[in-house]
Amino acid sequence: MSLPEIAKLGHVALVTTDLEKSLWFFKEIVGLEETETVNGTVYMRAWGDFEHHTLSLTAGEESRIDHIAWRTKRPEDVEAFAQLLQEAGTEVKWVEAGEEAGQGRAIRFKLPSGHSFELYYDVEKPLASPEKRSVLKNQTYKSWARGVSPRRIDHVNLLTSLKANEISDFLEEKLGFKMREYIEAPDGSYLGTWLSVTPLVHDIAISHDPFSPSTHQIHHLSYWLDNAQDLLRAADILTEHGIEFKGPGKHGISQAMYIYAIDPGSGVRVELFTNGYLIFEPDWEPIKWTLDEMNIGFTFWGDQMDNKPENNPTIPA
Amino acid sequence: MSLPEIAKLGHVALVTTDLEKSLWFFKEIVGLEETETVNGTVYMRAWGDFEHHTLSLTAGEESRIDHIAWRTKRPEDVEAFAQLLQEAGTEVKWVEAGEEAGQGRAIRFKLPSGHSFELYYDVEKPLASPEKRSVLKNQTYKSWARGVSPRRIDHVNLLTSLKANEISDFLEEKLGFKMREYIEAPDGSYLGTWLSVTPLVHDIAISHDPFSPSTHQIHHLSYWLDNAQDLLRAADILTEHGIEFKGPGKHGISQAMYIYAIDPGSGVRVELFTNGYLIFEPDWEPIKWTLDEMNIGFTFWGDQMDNKPENNPTIPA
Amino acid sequence: MSLPEIAKLGHVALVTTDLEKSLWFFKEIVGLEETETVNGTVYMRAWGDFEHHTLSLTAGEESRIDHIAWRTKRPEDVEAFAQLLQEAGTEVKWVEAGEEAGQGRAIRFKLPSGHSFELYYDVEKPLASPEKRSVLKNQTYKSWARGVSPRRIDHVNLLTSLKANEISDFLEEKLGFKMREYIEAPDGSYLGTWLSVTPLVHDIAISHDPFSPSTHQIHHLSYWLDNAQDLLRAADILTEHGIEFKGPGKHGISQAMYIYAIDPGSGVRVELFTNGYLIFEPDWEPIKWTLDEMNIGFTFWGDQMDNKPENNPTIPA
Amino acid sequence: MSLPEIAKLGHVALVTTDLEKSLWFFKEIVGLEETETVNGTVYMRAWGDFEHHTLSLTAGEESRIDHIAWRTKRPEDVEAFAQLLQEAGTEVKWVEAGEEAGQGRAIRFKLPSGHSFELYYDVEKPLASPEKRSVLKNQTYKSWARGVSPRRIDHVNLLTSLKANEISDFLEEKLGFKMREYIEAPDGSYLGTWLSVTPLVHDIAISHDPFSPSTHQIHHLSYWLDNAQDLLRAADILTEHGIEFKGPGKHGISQAMYIYAIDPGSGVRVELFTNGYLIFEPDWEPIKWTLDEMNIGFTFWGDQMDNKPENNPTIPA
Repeated sequence: MSLPEIAKLGHVALVTTDLEKSLWFFKEIVGLEETETVNGTVYMRAWGDFEHHTLSLTAGEESRIDHIAWRTKRPEDVEAFAQLLQEAGTEVKWVEAGEEAGQGRAIRFKLPSGHSFELYYDVEKPLASPEKRSVLKNQTYKSWARGVSPRRIDHVNLLTSLKANEISDFLEEKLGFKMREYIEAPDGSYLGTWLSVTPLVHDIAISHDPFSPSTHQIHHLSYWLDNAQDLLRAADILTEHGIEFKGPGKHGISQAMYIYAIDPGSGVRVELFTNGYLIFEPDWEPIKWTLDEMNIGFTFWGDQMDNKPENNPTIPA
Repeated sequence: MSLPEIAKLGHVALVTTDLEKSLWFFKEIVGLEETETVNGTVYMRAWGDFEHHTLSLTAGEESRIDHIAWRTKRPEDVEAFAQLLQEAGTEVKWVEAGEEAGQGRAIRFKLPSGHSFELYYDVEKPLASPEKRSVLKNQTYKSWARGVSPRRIDHVNLLTSLKANEISDFLEEKLGFKMREYIEAPDGSYLGTWLSVTPLVHDIAISHDPFSPSTHQIHHLSYWLDNAQDLLRAADILTEHGIEFKGPGKHGISQAMYIYAIDPGSGVRVELFTNGYLIFEPDWEPIKWTLDEMNIGFTFWGDQMDNKPENNPTIPA
Repeated sequence: MSLPEIAKLGHVALVTTDLEKSLWFFKEIVGLEETETVNGTVYMRAWGDFEHHTLSLTAGEESRIDHIAWRTKRPEDVEAFAQLLQEAGTEVKWVEAGEEAGQGRAIRFKLPSGHSFELYYDVEKPLASPEKRSVLKNQTYKSWARGVSPRRIDHVNLLTSLKANEISDFLEEKLGFKMREYIEAPDGSYLGTWLSVTPLVHDIAISHDPFSPSTHQIHHLSYWLDNAQDLLRAADILTEHGIEFKGPGKHGISQAMYIYAIDPGSGVRVELFTNGYLIFEPDWEPIKWTLDEMNIGFTFWGDQMDNKPENNPTIPA
Repeated sequence: MSLPEIAKLGHVALVTTDLEKSLWFFKEIVGLEETETVNGTVYMRAWGDFEHHTLSLTAGEESRIDHIAWRTKRPEDVEAFAQLLQEAGTEVKWVEAGEEAGQGRAIRFKLPSGHSFELYYDVEKPLASPEKRSVLKNQTYKSWARGVSPRRIDHVNLLTSLKANEISDFLEEKLGFKMREYIEAPDGSYLGTWLSVTPLVHDIAISHDPFSPSTHQIHHLSYWLDNAQDLLRAADILTEHGIEFKGPGKHGISQAMYIYAIDPGSGVRVELFTNGYLIFEPDWEPIKWTLDEMNIGFTFWGDQMDNKPENNPTIPA
């Protein structure tokens, strides 16, 4: 039997202390579409997402990421991952079909850092309602209906007080992620890592911050826009509606443009993301960056995030 | 042993009756960089390409594509493909390492249509010369040095008098390409097919034209730009320098924006290409289009190619 | 006393046979904002317009432009123009303050072609309602609220069976417009003229078409967008909502990018317009184009309007 | 006789301690074109400028702006301004035709702050050399030849230790500039003023800084680009070539996007500038901003200039 594989990032399950405000932010400002609401959880996706949802919002007493979900390549990969993870000492919990709307049987488990992951294969891909449906057969919704209007979910970035390699080692060894770029400290540990199972430079990144309030925070989740100009339009929209954000700017690592906006409901950071490069090389040599190169590595140009942790609150994941 | 796999499009080898004019077009107008010239063949690539070359130009008595080259996923895949193809009755010819600059041992063979393919794994990834090198460690050259300045090679589109499925069946069965979108004629044959081994909607497309001068023509080769705005800038540059082109416009199939420009040296059509969508779904259902949907399928909006074959000369491949 | 002067284009008063559909088009698709509705006339403007309205819509039995209104430089210029026009034999009709919402006393008169013009000085500049108001003190509404979302009115283009110079002579001699660019026929008559009172290349253009159904049609009215990319976004929105349009493309004359969309209610053509150049030179020599230069003069590149008049219906003005 | 009037900003005469480096910056990085070199002064302009030059570079022992030149509306306005200025006690010096290449007789004088202005009317508008000339009759050079490639000169911004109104009062009263926007201190003095003779929000701005090394510094000179996306491309080019800059960002005042780059030869700051709004209203009420509104007034969003004067060196003007 060949090794099980992850195909792609699926969705992020967000718990928010202010559901109404988070809904306003993600629907009216970011411009996501609601698929359906089941048992108080609102399932959403972008106009170019195909799956049932790429974000879910649930009210809770603490804002946090409940889990980050990944789709496997084959139906049998879920079971295979469960077995491999358990053999390696990771506790695995099954989530029955339908427990999460639109989704089949899945497993949940925690990374060594405590971040909660979900793996599934079966998922519905509902059509948009007729009046919102794109005239294109390869596109879910009409684009540009409201707000920033990103195309699709792109990646997640985990924040941790652990060294980044303590998480990325697990991602590489147990889940098949490939290292694409990383920042190495003088002591050889990794301060940041960018990994993917797709040709994207990263489906997931790990950011080390010694002042991180825990080992398992989220730095941001990210949605993709097609054009750099769309980010500038987003900056207008965010400023007009009083949304706090950093950017626009361009990363050296990933070569991508960014805006980091804060959901005023949950406090989660959302990266609006575009451009960058793809990695098709089967023998990609991970790009190593050192701290003295971070003047172009983090911010190639543009408005950047404050380095002081107290100015960069995060929520647990 | 697992089946051999293709990782990505590698390069296109172009023979031109007017090398000087083709060099002017690809270097000054398109803005490719020369890696080196060996035995009269000029090897070129875009600023974001990593391999030794993605286009080669050689003078010849007839303008034509000598071969289209693909990189395999593993070193041993070249030999494995050779064996499988020969077993299936396809004649395979070995090209020794160094016969093509920067490249290891490779095989060449013809599709049922007569189009010539090459498969290789070993390839050099030379750094750019210091003064042209990007300050970014993950980017080959500084961008925006000259002309249109695309990032990387994107795909090829083969033109044929055969039905598209006669070629795409081979691509799927023998080479592992996955069908992404297609146009079906009332008789069930395919008039156009878009296939890929990567999450791009197509690494290769097949266009059927009953008036195609042969079964093995090239419709176009394509380079990628990061932003739609870059295409508009390209249109200015092309018009100012008297280059014939169609576009800008947006395809429904692939959702991508295009300009089709003609190399005045060889007559080959070059698509400048951007936006579009990526397919990460492991269970992608190919999108079926019918002829009555081509008003949005081919051209979602914008300036389109003339349908009359006499206005659309092509060169053999 | 110095000669009276026109400062700028004010508004276009549109009569439509299908008010509901025109309102849907201008509000939901183009994205204009309603200032108020008075006596069945809906007054609208773009997010960056300052005056009470730049477009008004009224139901009527025939779709037509009721008048095109211009603001004078000084309050006394309205009276001065009235006097000069009457002395020159042009019939002038006074419109009392408040007859048109938000506007002071004005005059109306017809061009030699029959096109109806209005001149006014006094006009209200109402603030947007608090929830729609921009956080910027120099901007009326938040931008990007709905649809294409242009910034401001730009110009009008009159269509006529007369030679263009028969109208533009009047504009220059009686109203102080300056010729910026023109197309000269072999017989010395003008087939198209572009004139302005501002540094815009044209606040008004005259297009001659021998097949024009009358001497006084409108070719289009135009709204400005800030960026070329915004036009591409507009093309997506128009196509998704089934709006007929031509473009995007770039004119040689004016160097501006365009999309020509048809209001499905009235049939009036609306140009979405951006880029282009400004004329600050006090001694500008009008640019003369001849018919054999129209391959770049009309369409520098891109999708262009059909030349057949039967494919280009217009409404009277 | 009607009052003399200024039509537009003409050019900036820059003296640089490192002519070679300044030429590299303005030609290769910014992408200006050289008109001619006379007596060691290099005359340059952008691809869309019509006049002989909009920037001149001369080697000198101190980097400074020698003068800022404005074109009058009528030939006789130069003499008329000379007379009015002298009557008001301003010393006026005549510059004979040809003393500055391509330019007729002109006057020079100093603002109350010591900034040196020039007024002229007669100026040559040479065609570009055939191989660089645009195919468009209304455009001087082909665009996008090299580097950032802005269209035209836009404005100047003077830095002074005086209150801004001490300069802008003179501009309004003696030279006919109109106030468009301003920042008022609690004591009623002006900290910044934006004025124009054209519909641009500013042809000139005055920035007060109590730590300015003199009353007559230049904050920046500015060139215009057509699209916001062009600024992002500029940021790539500047970073790749090691040019120090701030931005991209968007001003609230003027609503325009900016990058501030430093010429490594002279140290002069050059603003790359786009978008923003035009003022066609004859009764424009200057927009008043107070210091507590500067969070959106200066920087609506994006990367901003450091407020510490020691981080913002300037050169005298």
